[in-house]
Amino acid sequence: MDKYAYLKNLDQLEKDLEKKRAVIEGKLKEYLPQENTYPPLVHQAMRYAVLPGGKRIRPLLAMLSAELFGPVDEAVLAGACAIEVIHSYSLIHDDLPAMDDDDLRRGRPTTHKAFGEAIAILAGDALNTLAFGILARGVGDAVKCKKMVKELACGAGSVGMIGGQSIDILSEGRQADERTLEYINLHKTGALMRGACVLGAIAAGAGDENAELLGNFGSNLGMSFQIMDDVLDAEKLWATASRTRTKHSKEIDKMTYVALLGPERSRDIAAKYNKQAVSSLVSFQKEAAKLVIFAQYLLNRET
Amino acid sequence: MDKYAYLKNLDQLEKDLEKKRAVIEGKLKEYLPQENTYPPLVHQAMRYAVLPGGKRIRPLLAMLSAELFGPVDEAVLAGACAIEVIHSYSLIHDDLPAMDDDDLRRGRPTTHKAFGEAIAILAGDALNTLAFGILARGVGDAVKCKKMVKELACGAGSVGMIGGQSIDILSEGRQADERTLEYINLHKTGALMRGACVLGAIAAGAGDENAELLGNFGSNLGMSFQIMDDVLDAEKLWATASRTRTKHSKEIDKMTYVALLGPERSRDIAAKYNKQAVSSLVSFQKEAAKLVIFAQYLLNRET
Repeated sequence: MDKYAYLKNLDQLEKDLEKKRAVIEGKLKEYLPQENTYPPLVHQAMRYAVLPGGKRIRPLLAMLSAELFGPVDEAVLAGACAIEVIHSYSLIHDDLPAMDDDDLRRGRPTTHKAFGEAIAILAGDALNTLAFGILARGVGDAVKCKKMVKELACGAGSVGMIGGQSIDILSEGRQADERTLEYINLHKTGALMRGACVLGAIAAGAGDENAELLGNFGSNLGMSFQIMDDVLDAEKLWATASRTRTKHSKEIDKMTYVALLGPERSRDIAAKYNKQAVSSLVSFQKEAAKLVIFAQYLLNRET
Repeated sequence: MDKYAYLKNLDQLEKDLEKKRAVIEGKLKEYLPQENTYPPLVHQAMRYAVLPGGKRIRPLLAMLSAELFGPVDEAVLAGACAIEVIHSYSLIHDDLPAMDDDDLRRGRPTTHKAFGEAIAILAGDALNTLAFGILARGVGDAVKCKKMVKELACGAGSVGMIGGQSIDILSEGRQADERTLEYINLHKTGALMRGACVLGAIAAGAGDENAELLGNFGSNLGMSFQIMDDVLDAEKLWATASRTRTKHSKEIDKMTYVALLGPERSRDIAAKYNKQAVSSLVSFQKEAAKLVIFAQYLLNRET
């Protein structure tokens, strides 16, 4: 029990996450083609979109999930990087003028603003493809590799992340309803968070049943995360509403829980999904302490 | 020797190809999500882009390559479909306003004209992902699957097809030079034709050395094919130049051999690559007769 006592301290978890983030950054830099690889522009755009990146939540989930079953080895890191590369490509394409039409991401010009639309589309495509190449290169065990490719293709594809994004786009400006909102969040965000946990678990040797428990954790955590993201975005928007806005981001027209139910009830729903996520891990008992604390940390974050 | 005598007759080969095309159409319909699968619009767009489709040259190459080593089984068909699905996604994205800006493909509105830009981008993304899912589902042998995923990711990625497309786009309207032209054709078209042959060969049990011979065949055939494609496109354009053109397709500005050297010398260069392709197959002797006749058929086609 003492082994996990330190985990009660969130600072300790943060230190662990920081170490893991550094490992992920290094691995991503290895797996991404160098900037001077021909043709340089598309490789510069790929690295621009992936590095230095955001919170790295998905690869962290993959690594924390893996630790329930075995060490964080090359196969686990390949799974973690593949998921992050898919996430990064989806952001490039999401920001395009034909999609959300955003000029800024993480305080920098979006990839199409920095490299032009054509190269942004191609860099996104190349990252989508690269994710599977990373699995084929990094996962030594062929049986694990095949399972991970199947899971990633399912989570990132038209009945996963892309399905969620398409309904997200088609629902813009429409009357919100809870069923559609649930579909959007479960697929746009939940599918890839599920994928992160399942890929980490499979890579570390989990059986199908345990991988599915981690999958449920990831799905529900993704729902909770997306709702909180929308709440925090809305609160930031309201706080800056008086400032001059030079551009109408389509974010404002998105169908979200916060638009339908307001921030307070949305926070309650996010908490409900978070609880559901954590309940999937009950059979792992204290072994899952880090994942549980990470879930709570994501729920309570302020940015 | 009699066994292959019939192959000298191109009509006979065409009958064989027709049968293979029917098999591919059936398999693609199976692997693509149904139109009523939620969310329907993105699935309709995916099927619209892949079915009924063009000449199916790439899956035919995969099947013909496989026949050198074993029967055309589920793994071969998965490889053939994966390549065709990648080819189809690349056409959707190629036609986008930010890329070639084409309104028509194979006599029908392009995917973004029929479904809108956002859904076209997402349908392309989903097909890119689906290709890898098809390999994971259709290739039973995990070791073969891993090899095929690696090869496909390499051929379709930033040092393969996407690399070629990015230089193709960046070279528009620029002074042509042979080195750039060679890079564009070898990557934009050669990489996926190489992939088709290698995936077919691996799926049917070829060793690395034989798979590489098929890869060389595919690369050179792709070069030859792309040059002939540009020649035929240019001749068609010149024939219709007097008619009213409502739109300036960027095709006209492409850097091509035919623009640099004229149709006659371009045909010579295409023939040279074709011969080089065929010479990769010399060790297979008459077993490779179908592939050789197919290569000649592609060189001599009029459309």
